[in-house]
Amino acid sequence: MLIRDYQDVPTQDISDLPGVTIRWVISTPEGARNFAMRIFEVQPGYASPLHSHYWEHEIFVLAGSGVANNGEKETPITAGSTIFIPPNAKHQLRNTGQSVLRFLCMIPTVPEALPPSHR
Amino acid sequence: MLIRDYQDVPTQDISDLPGVTIRWVISTPEGARNFAMRIFEVQPGYASPLHSHYWEHEIFVLAGSGVANNGEKETPITAGSTIFIPPNAKHQLRNTGQSVLRFLCMIPTVPEALPPSHR
Repeated sequence: MLIRDYQDVPTQDISDLPGVTIRWVISTPEGARNFAMRIFEVQPGYASPLHSHYWEHEIFVLAGSGVANNGEKETPITAGSTIFIPPNAKHQLRNTGQSVLRFLCMIPTVPEALPPSHR
Repeated sequence: MLIRDYQDVPTQDISDLPGVTIRWVISTPEGARNFAMRIFEVQPGYASPLHSHYWEHEIFVLAGSGVANNGEKETPITAGSTIFIPPNAKHQLRNTGQSVLRFLCMIPTVPEALPPSHR
């Protein structure tokens, strides 16, 4: 059993994505074989890219406020919001608030979704 | 994309487990094929059973305080704690605080881990 505060997991920048950091909290290095837990922090005014891929996301918003964009409309999200993004669905999360938008984002451990060091 | 506040998902009692409720937030009915998101609430003084099974857990503590028991020792947990419970590892979460212990618990969607209605 591995127990640690998420803040003890180092944040990493994401290339070509200013204003967004990621923590790989539970993933293949910790022994997770089926799915991985990451925590993202999006600074005010920033967003993840509008994109899609063949794997799903399961998201829980921990803090802040913003919108989830499905390519056609934006839906408000805030602490306590849960989001299921099915495979191949367009998605983007944007911080429209004044504080950090922090959310858990789980993915299956498919190679294309993992950094090379985690495959 | 399915977006909803976790509090809009009904709580369910768990048979033979007083003081503990579960919300099935994202699972097979929502289209999740690889893993499921549940939220547990444990009332003060109550606990999940000390048990083990062949699937893993990935846990994020949202609120409250307690201990995680691996069968040999208890480790304090509080909001922000992350826990990886590998397959077949003994585990129990116990609320030792004065308020509800609320945590996210993700599992792979293996049939034995799902209620009959979700298989």
